[in-house]
Amino acid sequence: MALQLYGFWRSLAAYRVRAALKLKGLPFVEHSVNLLAGEQHDPAYLKINPQGAVPALVVDGLSRPLFQSMAILDYLDHAHPTPALMPADPVDRSRVLALAHLCASDGHPLVVPRVRNYLQNTLQLDEATRNTWLQHFTMQALLAYERALSLDPRPGAYSHGDQVTVADLCLASQVVGAKLFGCTDFSGTPQVMSIFNALMKLDALQSSLPQNQPGAPK
Amino acid sequence: MALQLYGFWRSLAAYRVRAALKLKGLPFVEHSVNLLAGEQHDPAYLKINPQGAVPALVVDGLSRPLFQSMAILDYLDHAHPTPALMPADPVDRSRVLALAHLCASDGHPLVVPRVRNYLQNTLQLDEATRNTWLQHFTMQALLAYERALSLDPRPGAYSHGDQVTVADLCLASQVVGAKLFGCTDFSGTPQVMSIFNALMKLDALQSSLPQNQPGAPK
Repeated sequence: MALQLYGFWRSLAAYRVRAALKLKGLPFVEHSVNLLAGEQHDPAYLKINPQGAVPALVVDGLSRPLFQSMAILDYLDHAHPTPALMPADPVDRSRVLALAHLCASDGHPLVVPRVRNYLQNTLQLDEATRNTWLQHFTMQALLAYERALSLDPRPGAYSHGDQVTVADLCLASQVVGAKLFGCTDFSGTPQVMSIFNALMKLDALQSSLPQNQPGAPK
Repeated sequence: MALQLYGFWRSLAAYRVRAALKLKGLPFVEHSVNLLAGEQHDPAYLKINPQGAVPALVVDGLSRPLFQSMAILDYLDHAHPTPALMPADPVDRSRVLALAHLCASDGHPLVVPRVRNYLQNTLQLDEATRNTWLQHFTMQALLAYERALSLDPRPGAYSHGDQVTVADLCLASQVVGAKLFGCTDFSGTPQVMSIFNALMKLDALQSSLPQNQPGAPK
């Protein structure tokens, strides 16, 4: 049976995994978990992903679904190593993971639904204040990414040469988020945007975009 | 020359790396970057860690310091594989990484200094409201961890058997954070606390604790 991805059109973390599955040419079906309707908190879904979030990946033959996007990507890269999303050299791996985590572990967690809900419902912040939050922390990650690229430049179209890595998947999801949240000034992140534009020429990343998924607004 | 860790006594992410270095028996010297005084934003330090955060690790022979705790741990486990902090099997690796990221990528990023500063200085939230935030998101991660353990239990003293993994390092840092932030009700996380108590019997984890570092208040 094909791999089963639990995702949502708008999820930036699901985007990373969707794009990785396509890059590796792995067939999958996607089940939508409507995060805006709170379906991720459904007790039945919590048995699939105990965190109450997307993505989760059901793999035939495994006793449990996989969850957490970076952990799923690590699995995919070990179980289906071609094309590799991580370099083999330990130092290169660490560089790629550090870039990835700038987005996945420090930018994105500040803009997920549970945080947006807390800002709105618990702290009762108005929309403008919430949007400033989303834009601030999203751009902070991209600016750190830009500084990291400047300090440790590499030749090639993407973040780590001419091979797409998990860093690129995380960069792409972070830029997509920036656009969703209404960020418009990317003048401080020219290398990031150059990589993003190169990535958008790849069908795996383009066709995986939130706005190209079923359920997305036209 | 010994490894050089840029850390801070209070940093939960530096705690993970400090404990890993000790578990692996790797000699290191630690430089304190006073996060409370804003030293992480110093231009000279930004050249060491472009994110303006700790930890960073300087390794002899590498052109650049490593940064981001999970990326540093990945490097250490590849460069110094004994004792291993990650299982070899791809499915086990993914389980361990998912647990780790529940803390490192979804709990911890919500309580770091830059977020605390934003809550205080930009949103002008009072101390009680800020503390509720810190406790809420810290416990949310531990409760998700507990659910994950319940859905996919394994024998052994720690999160993944009787070998300490990166999941345990992240669990330990998350529980330490919970205590720093004044969480007192751990009745919903019995397995988490059992693992934490087992980990605290290990000198590498005990001696690495924030309160046991130079600069910590007595």
